Amino acid sequence: MSDPAPDALALRRFVTLAERLVEPTEFTVNEWMSRPDVVPCRELLLVRATMDPGRSHPFHHHPTREEIIYVLSGKAEQWCGGTYRILGPGEMVLIPQGEVHGTYNPFSEPLVFLAILSPAEAADPPVVDVSQEAPWLGMRDRNHLPVCG
Amino acid sequence: MSDPAPDALALRRFVTLAERLVEPTEFTVNEWMSRPDVVPCRELLLVRATMDPGRSHPFHHHPTREEIIYVLSGKAEQWCGGTYRILGPGEMVLIPQGEVHGTYNPFSEPLVFLAILSPAEAADPPVVDVSQEAPWLGMRDRNHLPVCG
Repeated sequence: MSDPAPDALALRRFVTLAERLVEPTEFTVNEWMSRPDVVPCRELLLVRATMDPGRSHPFHHHPTREEIIYVLSGKAEQWCGGTYRILGPGEMVLIPQGEVHGTYNPFSEPLVFLAILSPAEAADPPVVDVSQEAPWLGMRDRNHLPVCG
Repeated sequence: MSDPAPDALALRRFVTLAERLVEPTEFTVNEWMSRPDVVPCRELLLVRATMDPGRSHPFHHHPTREEIIYVLSGKAEQWCGGTYRILGPGEMVLIPQGEVHGTYNPFSEPLVFLAILSPAEAADPPVVDVSQEAPWLGMRDRNHLPVCG
């Protein structure tokens, strides 16, 4: 999708597969469905993320937004606030604003999930990495969990 | 899931299939993943809805919330503000606060979608039905679309 004119953007409502914004990151391949350069959202950001086996989005937090991670396929080792669960398709975690969390895929299948964040309009920074700080550094090692890059 | 104690609710983060709240409605079967009696959400409501063939959630609006409808399986005849698109899996509509919309399933397969609303804490009413008012009454007939109950 090329940059829309501001007037056209204000009228956008539907986001089909052809209209999503695909962006590879160091953690996942992101398919943005709702953000301010796709649709005129004010409350809701939505991205579909694919995480390869052995990959992760290590411990971080969002100081200005609440988040839900909802698993579509595969399995997530999902951390939130110092505890974790293995989530499968149709399962989720609610991450309150500012709470440290991380998503790891030590399994053999790709993990596909939706990340939903709110509000859409919020102060920076959008994300703060804490993976190299106590107590998060080494937290998975101390729980004898497989290495994830 | 039985009613949790307030203190236990405040600590809830993970919602597995066993913990979701299943509620049939006149339009859909709803599986609530995020609302204030499931998790301590402030911004995000999330429900997985299944709509049988021939069913609909006719024209309505949410005066105090923005919404995304994201299709998981099947197809939606999705209306928003007087226009519609057929949305398939992985496609969505952004519905600004107060904008009239409706979801119809005139197809042969069940439609499964996520409805995401924000903020979680908002003034009543949560929904206003306008399906019996001009110009929405008869709008699908005038477009020669199949009857949906």
